[in-house]
Amino acid sequence: MTTTQKVPLLLIGVGNVGQRFLELLIRKRDTLCDRLGLELILTGVADTSGVAICPTGLDPQQVVQLKAKGQGVAAYPRWGQSGGSALEMVRTTEADLLLEASPANLEDGQPGLSCIETALSRGMHVVTANKAPLVLAFPRLLTLTRVHGVQLRFDATVAGGLPAVNLGQRDLAAAEIYRLEGILNLTTNYILTRMAQDGLSYDEALAHAQAAGHAETDPSLDVEGWDAANKLVILAHSVLDYPATLAGVAVEGITHVTAETLRQAAAEGKRVKLVATAERDGDRYNLSVRPAWLDADHPLAQLGPKQMGIVYHTDISGVITAAIVEETPLPTASAMLRDIIDIYLLSAAR
Amino acid sequence: MTTTQKVPLLLIGVGNVGQRFLELLIRKRDTLCDRLGLELILTGVADTSGVAICPTGLDPQQVVQLKAKGQGVAAYPRWGQSGGSALEMVRTTEADLLLEASPANLEDGQPGLSCIETALSRGMHVVTANKAPLVLAFPRLLTLTRVHGVQLRFDATVAGGLPAVNLGQRDLAAAEIYRLEGILNLTTNYILTRMAQDGLSYDEALAHAQAAGHAETDPSLDVEGWDAANKLVILAHSVLDYPATLAGVAVEGITHVTAETLRQAAAEGKRVKLVATAERDGDRYNLSVRPAWLDADHPLAQLGPKQMGIVYHTDISGVITAAIVEETPLPTASAMLRDIIDIYLLSAAR
Repeated sequence: MTTTQKVPLLLIGVGNVGQRFLELLIRKRDTLCDRLGLELILTGVADTSGVAICPTGLDPQQVVQLKAKGQGVAAYPRWGQSGGSALEMVRTTEADLLLEASPANLEDGQPGLSCIETALSRGMHVVTANKAPLVLAFPRLLTLTRVHGVQLRFDATVAGGLPAVNLGQRDLAAAEIYRLEGILNLTTNYILTRMAQDGLSYDEALAHAQAAGHAETDPSLDVEGWDAANKLVILAHSVLDYPATLAGVAVEGITHVTAETLRQAAAEGKRVKLVATAERDGDRYNLSVRPAWLDADHPLAQLGPKQMGIVYHTDISGVITAAIVEETPLPTASAMLRDIIDIYLLSAAR
Repeated sequence: MTTTQKVPLLLIGVGNVGQRFLELLIRKRDTLCDRLGLELILTGVADTSGVAICPTGLDPQQVVQLKAKGQGVAAYPRWGQSGGSALEMVRTTEADLLLEASPANLEDGQPGLSCIETALSRGMHVVTANKAPLVLAFPRLLTLTRVHGVQLRFDATVAGGLPAVNLGQRDLAAAEIYRLEGILNLTTNYILTRMAQDGLSYDEALAHAQAAGHAETDPSLDVEGWDAANKLVILAHSVLDYPATLAGVAVEGITHVTAETLRQAAAEGKRVKLVATAERDGDRYNLSVRPAWLDADHPLAQLGPKQMGIVYHTDISGVITAAIVEETPLPTASAMLRDIIDIYLLSAAR
């Protein structure tokens, strides 16, 4: 690697994934520079406290330390600005890349959606871990990337650190996918697997999931199936080239699944999993998220409490399954790094 | 997609994989043109009978029909040349891309190795399904790609249509892989799985594999573990950045595995699989191929008779498993098409 590409980047959102991403910037600095020829420079960062902006680069370690002390980026020495907005930062700061890791707002996608639109329109590439803007405005965002000749990558939005989107978009680009099945939500798989393996009730398993950090305090988005449905909509747009909407997905959660149901399934040699499915039907796909009784030899039936997975049934590439064991949000953050490398390194190699 | 890229290409080898690739050229012609903006033009093809060369493009259908009639490409009307050599074709024919699908010659890699070297030196990209040149000369070939600014892709050489190489090279580019495990050979997995599931003896299972087209008449390369070892060497070079040699792999085949061994393993809740492993040990990797007793919940333990798979244990991306059901060589041919798309389409998008 003879030259090093310097990439000034902005980060929005310093929660679970955003913090892990900053840790990766520190931990993988040498690997990125020496092995991949990429120097990532954090020129701006935003969270709910405000922003910190420095054209020559902020220290990721200092941001991580602020968050560890319960402070926001507005407290960043010299460069922090209390109350500064993420959108204003994207509008006015020079950078080559926007990383969007703010929480999904499924009402209107904001402020992530405006930040992404602004970045793309200003000629920045965007890597997002935030599902909401994609679910609400995929076609519009895709158009923006084409108009402005930039890339929008989002491998981190589906199944954490598993390259589920990349596998479908890239490795199956010439294949027809006539069926896609996924266990795309960690919380529900954790709950169902613990119920089945350890005989826990739904409430007990949910409490375990929350204690282990695998479920939110308000788990409704997960357990009612909507998180998996969001991911399915993103896969439909990006991998199946199918203009899905959330309203077009038949969604059923796991809140009514009882220990008795699981015992009954086990007695029939089945495993109950929350499965997101896209099934080809003529020119369209039927999309659903629902608890399914899978045969024990189904590739998703074996997935443990900390696993997610996807199965692509194709015309020319056989049946391809991929799964990940994800103990923390680190792999999800690594998927954002993967997208960055894809944008810069793979293009540089050509 | 506004413009169509025309790619003149040469194909060497019209056996199982080469024929399937030609069928894909026909079957996916519209998808490639309309969806991906890629027009692949077969300007030359070589097999043991000779070559057929036509600057404006041969008809893949005619080549497939010749092979179906038991004839070689030398019999191609007007453009066939009896006895013409593949290497001479690569030396003298204008093309942008060489596809190498001739049988692996592990003695000296020829004629594939010389053809690939010549193509790279002439500024052609190369996509190969032939393992031997990579196993014997990976570093030299990599240097050639750098000197001449071209790409060498070989996703089809490992685990058929599974993007095992791509997953490791691309999606785990920033990750450290401290352990890699794979079921990389279909024949041995077919034999071991049929023995375990159906109580067949080794000889019976081998006969079934041969009858089903999953094993060669001389199966020694497969059953003695060398085919898997070759694939492990390719993964070591390409994914682990580790300069492995075949001599450095501890290889043990499955010829001594008995039905009794499998019964004993099953009684202990284990499955016996031929597993290729690369395990980090300080600055190096220990490489081995041997029958392993896997726990029933090991991600490779469940793979059926027509499956191959790989597991990457990483520092930042969790544990990622990928597997494929491969009934015919079609997915392997689709991996060659995947590599072509990667070379042309992903670069064009940037």
